[in-house]
Amino acid sequence: MGLLSEGLTQLLIPLAALVGLAFALLQWFLVSRVKVSGSYSEGNGYKDKLIGEAEEGVDSLEVTIKVAEIQNAISIGATSFLFTQYRYLSIFVGVFSAIIFLFLGSVKGFSTKSEPCTYNTGNTCKPALANAFFTTIAFLLGALTSVLSGFFGMKIATYANARTTLEARRGVGKAFITAFRSGAVMGFLLAANGLLVLYITINLFKLYYGDDWEGLYESITGYGLGGSSMALFGRVGGGIYTKAADVGADLVGKVERNIPEDDPRNPAVIADNVGDNVGDIAGMGSDLFGSYAESSCAALFVASISSFGISHDFTAMSYPLIISSMGIVVCLITTLFATDLFEIKKVSEIEPSLKRQLLISTVLMTAGIAGVTFVALPSEFTLFSFGTNKAVKNWYLFFCVAIGLWAGLVIGYTTEYYTSNAYSPVQDVADSCRTGAATNVIFGLALGYKSVIIPVFAIAFAIYVSFSMAAMYGIAVAALGMLSTISTGLAIDAYGPISDNAGGIAEMAGMSHEIRERTDALDAAGNTTAAIGKGFAIGSAALVSLALFGAYVSRAGIETVDVLTPKVFIGLLVGAMLPYWFSAMTMKSVGSAALKMVEEVRRQFNTIPGLMEGTAKPDYATCVKISTDASLKEMIPPGALVMLTPLIAGTFFGVETLAGILAGSLVSGVQIAISASNTGGAWDNAKKYIEAGASEHAKSLGPKGSDPHKAAVIGDTIGDPLKDTSGPSLNILIKLMAVESLVFAPFFAAHGGVLFKWL
Amino acid sequence: MGLLSEGLTQLLIPLAALVGLAFALLQWFLVSRVKVSGSYSEGNGYKDKLIGEAEEGVDSLEVTIKVAEIQNAISIGATSFLFTQYRYLSIFVGVFSAIIFLFLGSVKGFSTKSEPCTYNTGNTCKPALANAFFTTIAFLLGALTSVLSGFFGMKIATYANARTTLEARRGVGKAFITAFRSGAVMGFLLAANGLLVLYITINLFKLYYGDDWEGLYESITGYGLGGSSMALFGRVGGGIYTKAADVGADLVGKVERNIPEDDPRNPAVIADNVGDNVGDIAGMGSDLFGSYAESSCAALFVASISSFGISHDFTAMSYPLIISSMGIVVCLITTLFATDLFEIKKVSEIEPSLKRQLLISTVLMTAGIAGVTFVALPSEFTLFSFGTNKAVKNWYLFFCVAIGLWAGLVIGYTTEYYTSNAYSPVQDVADSCRTGAATNVIFGLALGYKSVIIPVFAIAFAIYVSFSMAAMYGIAVAALGMLSTISTGLAIDAYGPISDNAGGIAEMAGMSHEIRERTDALDAAGNTTAAIGKGFAIGSAALVSLALFGAYVSRAGIETVDVLTPKVFIGLLVGAMLPYWFSAMTMKSVGSAALKMVEEVRRQFNTIPGLMEGTAKPDYATCVKISTDASLKEMIPPGALVMLTPLIAGTFFGVETLAGILAGSLVSGVQIAISASNTGGAWDNAKKYIEAGASEHAKSLGPKGSDPHKAAVIGDTIGDPLKDTSGPSLNILIKLMAVESLVFAPFFAAHGGVLFKWL
Repeated sequence: MGLLSEGLTQLLIPLAALVGLAFALLQWFLVSRVKVSGSYSEGNGYKDKLIGEAEEGVDSLEVTIKVAEIQNAISIGATSFLFTQYRYLSIFVGVFSAIIFLFLGSVKGFSTKSEPCTYNTGNTCKPALANAFFTTIAFLLGALTSVLSGFFGMKIATYANARTTLEARRGVGKAFITAFRSGAVMGFLLAANGLLVLYITINLFKLYYGDDWEGLYESITGYGLGGSSMALFGRVGGGIYTKAADVGADLVGKVERNIPEDDPRNPAVIADNVGDNVGDIAGMGSDLFGSYAESSCAALFVASISSFGISHDFTAMSYPLIISSMGIVVCLITTLFATDLFEIKKVSEIEPSLKRQLLISTVLMTAGIAGVTFVALPSEFTLFSFGTNKAVKNWYLFFCVAIGLWAGLVIGYTTEYYTSNAYSPVQDVADSCRTGAATNVIFGLALGYKSVIIPVFAIAFAIYVSFSMAAMYGIAVAALGMLSTISTGLAIDAYGPISDNAGGIAEMAGMSHEIRERTDALDAAGNTTAAIGKGFAIGSAALVSLALFGAYVSRAGIETVDVLTPKVFIGLLVGAMLPYWFSAMTMKSVGSAALKMVEEVRRQFNTIPGLMEGTAKPDYATCVKISTDASLKEMIPPGALVMLTPLIAGTFFGVETLAGILAGSLVSGVQIAISASNTGGAWDNAKKYIEAGASEHAKSLGPKGSDPHKAAVIGDTIGDPLKDTSGPSLNILIKLMAVESLVFAPFFAAHGGVLFKWL
Repeated sequence: MGLLSEGLTQLLIPLAALVGLAFALLQWFLVSRVKVSGSYSEGNGYKDKLIGEAEEGVDSLEVTIKVAEIQNAISIGATSFLFTQYRYLSIFVGVFSAIIFLFLGSVKGFSTKSEPCTYNTGNTCKPALANAFFTTIAFLLGALTSVLSGFFGMKIATYANARTTLEARRGVGKAFITAFRSGAVMGFLLAANGLLVLYITINLFKLYYGDDWEGLYESITGYGLGGSSMALFGRVGGGIYTKAADVGADLVGKVERNIPEDDPRNPAVIADNVGDNVGDIAGMGSDLFGSYAESSCAALFVASISSFGISHDFTAMSYPLIISSMGIVVCLITTLFATDLFEIKKVSEIEPSLKRQLLISTVLMTAGIAGVTFVALPSEFTLFSFGTNKAVKNWYLFFCVAIGLWAGLVIGYTTEYYTSNAYSPVQDVADSCRTGAATNVIFGLALGYKSVIIPVFAIAFAIYVSFSMAAMYGIAVAALGMLSTISTGLAIDAYGPISDNAGGIAEMAGMSHEIRERTDALDAAGNTTAAIGKGFAIGSAALVSLALFGAYVSRAGIETVDVLTPKVFIGLLVGAMLPYWFSAMTMKSVGSAALKMVEEVRRQFNTIPGLMEGTAKPDYATCVKISTDASLKEMIPPGALVMLTPLIAGTFFGVETLAGILAGSLVSGVQIAISASNTGGAWDNAKKYIEAGASEHAKSLGPKGSDPHKAAVIGDTIGDPLKDTSGPSLNILIKLMAVESLVFAPFFAAHGGVLFKWL
């Protein structure tokens, strides 16, 4: 037994979660001290004067009213989209809950008889029907928590965007802190919420399951499935929404009409800013929550069939939750460095400061991991590894978690190198704009491909070490290690779209050029941090999927997944194809939706008199509606592809082919996801590099409107769906198929492979 | 024993090869009847009048002189590039021969003692040193044959291009026949040559090996390695050459200077036309020869350790060669349909006619396979399948070969659907040009991703059936089945670049617009057939690699390649990354070389007075030199990546990790290769669709120079390196790593994995 008693464990985990929640609320409170007019009368203007510090040369009151107005429009748009989406999702959740219950219930023919345990031999476990029921409940809870994570993130983001704009008048440092704090609210809410719900669920389920921990942690896997399936639609739907609006707005506004980004005359501009919140914030939140839930579930499941589980050592079993608890504490300290210990004075300090956040959290967390590993785990124990038991020492586990954590840092830094315009890769891409859009695209694609190399080696190294040390449990906790600093990661990541929105609001409110420059600088760093966030998301997704894959294989009772058998190989080949199929769908969806948006924006410019002159207002609502309708309609086919593939493959082709599919989609999806995110990020920043004109080289390519700049805008537009729709959605593809397979494994093992059986 | 006696087999195989050679010569003779001035005086013009039929409204003599001059320049450029390339390659071949000899010789410490056989238990086999020696010889022969295949293809192509131009004056049908016949020369030369050299090599090696067929066919694998390693440099070097020139020429000529493609005022125009011959013709020829040699070697190797080999049934052993022999006969008959039975009267008949060629050859070959299977194979036998023996009936093999063949047809037809502008996918891409280059690129990428689905299912189906029926031997003969109609496939494929050149020559010689329209129509169909050819190349490469992979696993003595072991999994992940790394290198190479070309072309336009007016001649030679230098320099890093990966992985990480790498690069590379080829083909044809303006829809997007057309040109330019450099080179990446692993397997098994051993 480890040093930590069960009672203390039961106390510390919820305590950490509550501390995280309290810290999130504190940050929210600090953000809320920046005042944007609070009280509206019903539809006819503002009652009170708006409080805001004076901006040079612009009527402060008028600007602040406008800012509040725009913020309100964005917030209403985002909320209404999410609610519409949730209506659709509730149907999906209802149907899928029934499928889970029926499939899993049918494993033993809906019998209510207790069964002998599979791993904990000699004991009796609860009936399969109970597992079906509790898995369904866990699924519902996971779905709900995911939705809440996304929703709260969106709420704080739409709350913070205008405040960031207003603070930008007081300097780039103030604006940075506001945006960063808001990101932190989201990060801590998500991590604490996820941990708390999982902790409570386990304890409630334990009331029924008692000593049957196999059944208990099998059911808990439903939590991961629920979280990730919501994330799928959040990412895909949100991704299509945001990029349809963004591409549509840019194609007409920037390219045809030559008006700036986020110009209030552009009818799609509100939709574009809503999109940042529903796609990059809510979608990202759901995605990372999904990873977190899945890696916890994978680790718990593997642990439950290992010596901890068999000997009912609750503290050791809860090791994944204790790591996350420590993560919250570490991130809390890390956040103080950014918000209180250092102050940003210049634009050029933003990126180093964010990088420092990553480094600080990683270093502190390494110590934290060492601590929890030695107090929570017994010094020696055995882990289940595909039919054999592997003897493991507790310090092995320290290495597993730490290597995941540090691999995340390597991925983050590599991503920064390839997407920040402070380094040569993006500058080369910008330079290639001299010869036009074609060379820009060629260089950008090459950059994305190249950026895959180091992350893949980092992931491979982490897998090798953690796998060798602690089999599949090692992989699962390595994933948790990478995600343990999720609060800081999300803070860094969410700060990007918030700044993007802040810039949009500044532009629309007609604030001075200087303000826009400040928010643009924040936004440029935000593009890089968004790419870093995506790097973390995909890196952890790779580890999580592998852990889930291992858990699936154990649960389905497969001994080896031999590439040399035809069933597995065809799975591998088809699995490697799925990310392409999926990307084809999502890219095309963005393209078609953007075309519709372009037509609508053109129509408004052509038919609304005075729109270009700024004397008439565009019809923002129609554009919002186009994005909403398109994303809700278009998220169904890719969603179906992901959700149905494991069901079809498992039922008709059996567990081995499905194992091949999971491995294939994992190894292929990682590459496309990383390259797509980085290519898109690089194009965006190449454009910003030319626009900012901060160096001689950059000046020679600019200014805005020059031929190289036009070429850069084309690259940026192409990158939009790559980096914000298809790329990040692929994380979910690989994770979700794996967790779904894990949940349905007993069914596939019992009744699957009908096609081969019939042949 | 089968019905066919050994003597008859020894007669029929070389006979078929000789018939193929004779037919190739006949086609060459027929092409040569189109007269272009033959005799030049030394550098100062032409002695004899040129004979050519009169073209409407243009001075026939002057035009024909110009045509001959241009042809001469292209031919000299191509020949000189290939010779320069061969100089570099000879160094590589020398060094690599030494590596093969030393590595394989060291397996048993350079002992000259005979060894007990591995599979043919109880018998003695030749010493490992002999195998090292003969493998090296086979490697040299394979390299030589590959180089010859590429070189002869280039020769006939540069011979035929001007003749196609001249024939275009007499109608599209005549031009088509000339181009197609020339393609057929290449196809038959390659197939017959490959078969003959392999046949002779086997018989010569047999003089030494006698009854040791294990050693004999082990050594023969060197033939595949030689063929494929030359193909690597042919494809990569040629691909960079052709696209650097093409992209460079287009960016300045079409985009900046607004002059037509292939305009003689463009300094890069000769380099562009040379590129078609060294990249699309010589590179493609080497590539398909490599596939052919490798699949034969894989099949022979697997057979040699099966019951045929053990019982020394030469006819059954030679089944792969007999299939290829039958293929030559079938393609001969098929060719007659195109050249003699049907006549092309209209442009719209070209594509259906080429599709018919595929269908005819497939149907006839199906009957042919049935025939050879029943006469060559005993009715029952056993095949070696990873440590076990599998009992197989001869008709199983019929299904294996036939399914490969038909899968090829499915891939070909799918490719046609996605890249021909007769169907909606390309038309949709063209339509997306309305909103600019960005949507064009988004739609094009989505199209490429989508086009992967059906081919992958076709390959997976072929793998499943052939693997289930006849283990790895089934896969190898399925690959051979797909390649059995290689002569027809190559004829169809080579016809494209020949027509492309013909169009270029027409433009440069100032022939009338009508001629150019005819060659453009040929060329548009050629883009589709080139994509079909690439589809075949990648489809067969997938099957070949898998067969080689199986042979490697057998030879390295691995029992299972279990994804659940960390060594294999990290191999899988890193393997899936390699195609991205490789593509990054090749794309960037094209980009950088194109930038240099752009600068040179701009320089000439800016500094040579009268160039734009057509009164001064550009300096073609400098552009040719830029392409040559760039391609020779830039082919080294990607070449090293491919050649060194198996050596490093096998030596340091061992046979299991290498097995993972091979599987990973295979399943990932197939997808990128198909999508890259099809995306590029679709963009090219979307542009041609707008230019041709054959429908109301197409007219609404055109004409040349309109905004949608400009967007289409950008897409076309981006597609160039995708479809002609990185995409097709990936075939070779996956094949070559597999065959190299196979050749070095004994070394890796004996001395590999030092890193893990040390850990």
